Amino acid sequence: MERDNAGYRYFMRKEILEQPGAVSRTLAGCVTNGRVIEAAFGSAAGTVFDRTEHVHIVACGTSYHAGVVARYFIEQICRLPCSIEVASEYRYRKPVTPRGSLLVALSQSGETPDTLAAARLARPGGFIASLAICNAPKSTLVRESDLVLLTHAGAKLALPATKTFTAQLVALGVLIGALVRRYEDDSCRERELVAQLLTLPAVIEATLALEPAIRSLARRLAEERHMLLLGRGIMYPVAMEGALKLKEVSYIQAEAYAAGELKHGPLALVDAAMPVIAMAPCDTVLEKLKSNLMEVRARRGQVVVFADPDSGLISKEEVASIAMPGRLAEIQCPVVYSVALQLLAFHVALFKGIDPDHPRGITMNSGRE
Amino acid sequence: MERDNAGYRYFMRKEILEQPGAVSRTLAGCVTNGRVIEAAFGSAAGTVFDRTEHVHIVACGTSYHAGVVARYFIEQICRLPCSIEVASEYRYRKPVTPRGSLLVALSQSGETPDTLAAARLARPGGFIASLAICNAPKSTLVRESDLVLLTHAGAKLALPATKTFTAQLVALGVLIGALVRRYEDDSCRERELVAQLLTLPAVIEATLALEPAIRSLARRLAEERHMLLLGRGIMYPVAMEGALKLKEVSYIQAEAYAAGELKHGPLALVDAAMPVIAMAPCDTVLEKLKSNLMEVRARRGQVVVFADPDSGLISKEEVASIAMPGRLAEIQCPVVYSVALQLLAFHVALFKGIDPDHPRGITMNSGRE
Repeated sequence: MERDNAGYRYFMRKEILEQPGAVSRTLAGCVTNGRVIEAAFGSAAGTVFDRTEHVHIVACGTSYHAGVVARYFIEQICRLPCSIEVASEYRYRKPVTPRGSLLVALSQSGETPDTLAAARLARPGGFIASLAICNAPKSTLVRESDLVLLTHAGAKLALPATKTFTAQLVALGVLIGALVRRYEDDSCRERELVAQLLTLPAVIEATLALEPAIRSLARRLAEERHMLLLGRGIMYPVAMEGALKLKEVSYIQAEAYAAGELKHGPLALVDAAMPVIAMAPCDTVLEKLKSNLMEVRARRGQVVVFADPDSGLISKEEVASIAMPGRLAEIQCPVVYSVALQLLAFHVALFKGIDPDHPRGITMNSGRE
Repeated sequence: MERDNAGYRYFMRKEILEQPGAVSRTLAGCVTNGRVIEAAFGSAAGTVFDRTEHVHIVACGTSYHAGVVARYFIEQICRLPCSIEVASEYRYRKPVTPRGSLLVALSQSGETPDTLAAARLARPGGFIASLAICNAPKSTLVRESDLVLLTHAGAKLALPATKTFTAQLVALGVLIGALVRRYEDDSCRERELVAQLLTLPAVIEATLALEPAIRSLARRLAEERHMLLLGRGIMYPVAMEGALKLKEVSYIQAEAYAAGELKHGPLALVDAAMPVIAMAPCDTVLEKLKSNLMEVRARRGQVVVFADPDSGLISKEEVASIAMPGRLAEIQCPVVYSVALQLLAFHVALFKGIDPDHPRGITMNSGRE
């Protein structure tokens, strides 16, 4: 079979490297003059967003992790209560819908059966509307949703999601921009957000330039069978997505933890044979994360950090560290750190002799529930 | 050091076996004549519950898992929106509090720093009141909360939580009974719930009688380093708690998954060397779970089930299976299946030569954040 991957040996790497373009194209259709184009969501968007008092996100797998990131920002920036749930759980229980709820369904393909089924509950469940964030314009989810924001990540040929995930994060950033103008009187916060999103392609390029260092780290980690990934706040779902990538393409049992939960049991797992990978941008919980890492080091865990140059965690001693682009805006961090973890998972796969485009046991859009 | 464990070699086993009493004592003070005694929560309880339109639960570690179970029931039975969050995450972000929110803080000791800090946000966060569910009557959390429901699990001397967890589940069942009378006109559902809670000690006894079979299973699993635990619905948090117990006392990296999420990546981990433990009571998602298990078997994963005798999953071939007590009410399942997983973790620890009362790396009520 001839594979159209334009000179790249693997689609996964090609798609990782395509992310600056995927982000630019996704933004192109929905921001202008430094503001969000509300009509990009559909003609009813303005009315729906005016009435939105609560956001409920449903998704599966990688898309779920994008939703967990968005939940933090929707509460913090837009001051709207936001809940998020795995679609295969949501559709089979008897949930309660708060008044003024907007259902947001995230699916790359727009055909994920559980997400489709959950989105179909929007009307009987009493939601004011459903919004699909989707990479496939002709998909069932797009056809059936009241509002749609398309990501323009291009065709996804590798099985593990990479560019479609970051494009979802960016689309969710645009949604946050559209919602925050209702919370704040002036357009200042919205303009700031849009500017930060528009800078992302350049920051992603800077992250992709770290590939050689990340590849060296991957060589060190390729023999491991276990791993913990730690984050706090918006970095927790980033750790979750990184752990999923490692599971998918390297078969390492990588598990993500909100770092503050470590002491309630999982620290027992940590010994000299356990690599612990932490995401450490310069945010409000950095000092808390550092104290969690001290506990890991006290148990001789191998601490690896992806960290801001000013975090105080980049050193040439004891720990392996990757200096990430600095001075990131909060909304940029999940995208940028996810790109680094994608590269890590990809190179671990290669060192283990695994074809990352076709992990064992997984199929694309299988229609299974 | 002489240890007051009344002839048991380990406090953990003693505390597992004490659970029928812990449940009875917890219920004794708060149900009468088949109904919930509302005043057991405090004199203001009636007024607070009348005004409750939303429940927000905060907790850490094992208590968090009890909260995840409760969330399902509060939405399903009481028809109140319910959210749940790890306390160390909640306290450091900028959450939004929906109108009429009751904050429920779960902590065995009442001194867990993150949970205390989260509960202290009740007033500035605009909650109508805070409710502590706690095993320590003189604790800071109890002193500082508007309402209190005490569990009566007795002193906790083993480090891994067992009886305090099931007592929390029962206390949350009582809270659900108090809330459901506001949703339903007659006391029928409340009486049914109370009756089901009162039957628990006997059902737990029946589960404890499975110890020899669970011990045999533990011998088979003691050499493993990895494990997946699967559940759907209320069984997902039970799987989470089981995975935490296994991590804590057996150092096996056991990870819980909502079974419907397996196909979105983690299936790549499954091969003949991966034990997959599933919780299978006869509930509405049993058929879905069975189809998830077929996918695991297709990848030669070693399927182990804790299952209802009528689930169709108890067989003498291919898989290891533990026949759990049958005809359980939904509210009983999390307690009963958790007891079985506690026994499993305990015996795996013994086969591995680990003292389950004192897992490495973990300390009790350390005051750390």
